[in-house]
Amino acid sequence: MASPRKTVLITGAAGYIGSHIALCCLLSGKYSVVTIDNFHNSFPTALERVTKIAQDALPAGASDEDKKALEIKCYRGDISIKSEIDQIFKDYEGKGGIWGVIHVAALKAVGESGEIPIKYYENNITATINLLDVMDKYKVYNLVYSSSATVYGAPPQCPIPESSPLQPESCYGRTKFMSELIIKDVCDSAPDKWRAISLRYFNPAGAHPSGQIGEDPRGRPGNLLPLLAQMAVGKFPEGLKIFGNDYDTPDGTCVRDYIHIMDLAEGHVLALAALPRDEIYAAQGQAAGFGSSGGKYKAYNLGKGKGMSVLNMVDAMQKASGFKYKTEIVGRRTGDVPELTADPALAEKELEFKAKRDLEAMCRDQWNWQSNNPKGYENQA
Amino acid sequence: MASPRKTVLITGAAGYIGSHIALCCLLSGKYSVVTIDNFHNSFPTALERVTKIAQDALPAGASDEDKKALEIKCYRGDISIKSEIDQIFKDYEGKGGIWGVIHVAALKAVGESGEIPIKYYENNITATINLLDVMDKYKVYNLVYSSSATVYGAPPQCPIPESSPLQPESCYGRTKFMSELIIKDVCDSAPDKWRAISLRYFNPAGAHPSGQIGEDPRGRPGNLLPLLAQMAVGKFPEGLKIFGNDYDTPDGTCVRDYIHIMDLAEGHVLALAALPRDEIYAAQGQAAGFGSSGGKYKAYNLGKGKGMSVLNMVDAMQKASGFKYKTEIVGRRTGDVPELTADPALAEKELEFKAKRDLEAMCRDQWNWQSNNPKGYENQA
Ligand SMILES: NC(=O)c1ccc[n+]([C@@H]2O[C@H](COP(=O)([O-])OP(=O)(O)OC[C@H]3O[C@@H](n4cnc5c(N)ncnc54)[C@H](O)[C@@H]3O)[C@@H](O)[C@H]2O)c1
Ligand SMILES: NC(=O)c1ccc[n+]([C@@H]2O[C@H](COP(=O)([O-])OP(=O)(O)OC[C@H]3O[C@@H](n4cnc5c(N)ncnc54)[C@H](O)[C@@H]3O)[C@@H](O)[C@H]2O)c1
Repeated sequence: MASPRKTVLITGAAGYIGSHIALCCLLSGKYSVVTIDNFHNSFPTALERVTKIAQDALPAGASDEDKKALEIKCYRGDISIKSEIDQIFKDYEGKGGIWGVIHVAALKAVGESGEIPIKYYENNITATINLLDVMDKYKVYNLVYSSSATVYGAPPQCPIPESSPLQPESCYGRTKFMSELIIKDVCDSAPDKWRAISLRYFNPAGAHPSGQIGEDPRGRPGNLLPLLAQMAVGKFPEGLKIFGNDYDTPDGTCVRDYIHIMDLAEGHVLALAALPRDEIYAAQGQAAGFGSSGGKYKAYNLGKGKGMSVLNMVDAMQKASGFKYKTEIVGRRTGDVPELTADPALAEKELEFKAKRDLEAMCRDQWNWQSNNPKGYENQA
Repeated sequence: MASPRKTVLITGAAGYIGSHIALCCLLSGKYSVVTIDNFHNSFPTALERVTKIAQDALPAGASDEDKKALEIKCYRGDISIKSEIDQIFKDYEGKGGIWGVIHVAALKAVGESGEIPIKYYENNITATINLLDVMDKYKVYNLVYSSSATVYGAPPQCPIPESSPLQPESCYGRTKFMSELIIKDVCDSAPDKWRAISLRYFNPAGAHPSGQIGEDPRGRPGNLLPLLAQMAVGKFPEGLKIFGNDYDTPDGTCVRDYIHIMDLAEGHVLALAALPRDEIYAAQGQAAGFGSSGGKYKAYNLGKGKGMSVLNMVDAMQKASGFKYKTEIVGRRTGDVPELTADPALAEKELEFKAKRDLEAMCRDQWNWQSNNPKGYENQA
């Protein structure tokens, strides 16, 4: 008989990152997954495919029970409305309860956040407060939170350690920063109950190697790799604008820390495993980048610790897709910093996290997803 | 005929500060008041008394219409529930609409905020986001916000200018800091619509000279003056503990900037008048203590700019009440800073704000309120 899985609620599991996290949770053999998603930026199809990939990975002769444990229970709902979260926890009270939460759902477009800040604060802050309140009500005290390297703003040093000052420069970044502060205050208020880990993502890219799940941006992709992948299937024929090639970097273009989405997602399974380990919280005030405290709160960078320039990425995607990119150097974009890379030492030491997949795998998997699903999920269901 | 008053929604007008703000709005002749309060920390009686004081101040022979304009329409409701705010704006659509909002309601106990942070974030942040969302929906873009000197934490210089870094040291302080950031982001998103002024209060004390309204704390008062006033009517016979007399201050005890509540409240009428004046926003990024921006957002200190030590306050209350206080020097309290005083220059220059009432008036009015209402509002209704 299969060992019983713990139930984890993943908010926003239908999204790009959430779907890969859900998959890794299922593949670990330790967790079953329930989610709440309003499909604001995703499709239910993603959840079905996650289950399918996980079931296909079962050993031959797996029982129906084993297969069933890989189904994702999905609530269509909005986490900025408290009662819609409450319903889930209530339903699960009778089923052994929810063990922990991975809070992934959020709005995430930096530019848009400055235009419609109220919507961003509602989806990213009110929602986080709602979630904490419901967790508290049902005595669920284990939390992993999707934070972002944007909390660092333009950091004084690179690679960036977790102790770097938090000075986000966009409204989106502030929603992530405030969520961390709120979660930390909650942990400080009851160190005997709450445990939380924030994971500060650098640049997630790529897809599961099956090519069945991946990033499916609406409109023009905001991130480089999906944009390059879509160009290779004929979209955006005008080519790639490169914002500045006169930065103080090896080839003059901006350098970022791209991390394979499967590495990133696996980091969440490691974080779930680390939550109960008291020793990681010892020095956390320092590491979290804001005042020390008595609570069990900790923040970790998830990055590869290696910088890739825009030109490196174009080259690598050219190899993966065979497509010859048209590029054009244009002026620097205000707000861009030359280099943003993670110091991944803390996550490596305490979570045993290592981003092992390389740039080639990232581009191959990105291209595999793109070429299998040239129109994303929408027309594939 | 009386000139038509603009309708101002004051959240939490039944509370200590809100009731005095409501009174000053009414006395100004320019505003009528509607409020929403859940009476978590206040009594409806306060609102009736505000109206009574304002009506008593009308010239002889004032019309019934003039008197009626001084009634405060009160919604019993909770601003952390969006629909309860929405209802008010909806009702007023037919009555010429709401012109602006003074957002006063909040939980405010520093110590408690660290114990029940979720409640503080819900009442002070979710509520602020709700309010902004409803204002936006009904196109009400004028806002004055009750901030606090706690946003400065332990400041690098004293008196504290508005440009001092914001580094709150309590969960309560973070709710005020975050509310300011959120309001500022909203102003930045639409400079042609939104205008907001945050008022950072130092230590409000005293009461309206009528002795009809004042601070009515539940349990042991957290602030010095109400505590001294209650001691003078026989409560807390154990006397006053003074936390440290070896600070680097004139008499060794901590120095704070006490401001008469009527001065503070009048500052809000000045802020309402300043909102439409474009020129005050010119240099506001700087003055707000966090990055510059294009929006019409501004923060002002409301303080007297003069420090009073604990011993100064004990002396002054002794004179006002005739009560001989028993004091005891005990050790310093962690977290206390020796001196916190406002640099009031900016509010003086741009709002024409001046805290003109002196310590003697403050203590006299505090004592007048206390001796008229030894049990506060509860047993007086
Ligand atoms: N993609 C990145 O580059 C990146 C980098 C750093 C951090 N993050 C963070 O990772 C998380 C996931 O990002 P992603 O790239 O997968 O985005 P995504 O848009 O693909 O996924 C977010 C999911 O949450 C859902 N959602 C949003 N608001 C919701 C609400 N109010 N109620 C219910 N569901 C809601 C969306 O429908 C979507 O399925 C976010 O918190 C984001 O801020 C992303
Ligand atoms: N008193 C001080 O020393 C001081 C100093 C700096 C800033 N402030 C700020 O000034 C404001 C008013 O403080 P106060 O001293 O008058 O406090 P108070 O408790 O006397 O008044 C607050 C009022 O808001 C109401 N309220 C609270 N939460 C509510 C909710 N969710 N929905 C509806 N009503 C709600 C309360 O019932 C009360 O009537 C607060 O924002 C506080 O943070 C106070």
